[in-house]
Amino acid sequence: MTAYTATVTVRLKNGVLDPEAETTKRALERLGFEVDGLRSADRFEVDLDAESADVAATRADEMAQRLLANPTIHDYDVSVAER
Amino acid sequence: MTAYTATVTVRLKNGVLDPEAETTKRALERLGFEVDGLRSADRFEVDLDAESADVAATRADEMAQRLLANPTIHDYDVSVAER
Repeated sequence: MTAYTATVTVRLKNGVLDPEAETTKRALERLGFEVDGLRSADRFEVDLDAESADVAATRADEMAQRLLANPTIHDYDVSVAER
Repeated sequence: MTAYTATVTVRLKNGVLDPEAETTKRALERLGFEVDGLRSADRFEVDLDAESADVAATRADEMAQRLLANPTIHDYDVSVAER
């Protein structure tokens, strides 16, 4: 078993309203920054043990499907690195 | 001017309690996953125009310091890519 960290990034699908990002963008503009667009995402770094990086990625994918992401409104991607 | 996307990742400093991550970890364990640790972070993807990647990174760094991160409890990092 090897120790891995799987990073799951969960973002809203295109077309889903993101009021948090809209508020953040406007706050940056009030501070004087020019911003063309802003998207927010959640990032989960999950430490887990697995036989291989592929197994770790598959397990993190399952975590995303079952809990971390809502497939109706979210896209996600998974990347794995040794710890 | 070139169009860039700056990605600002904001995470809690070591030692700062993260109840959201703790709850997520426990929920994954209830679903049968073995998890050694879990950290959550916020990710902002900021579209901006700048003279160079260095200028874009400097501007995103300022955004993090002034709004996106709270230096008392957060660490952050910035990466920049052409759009």
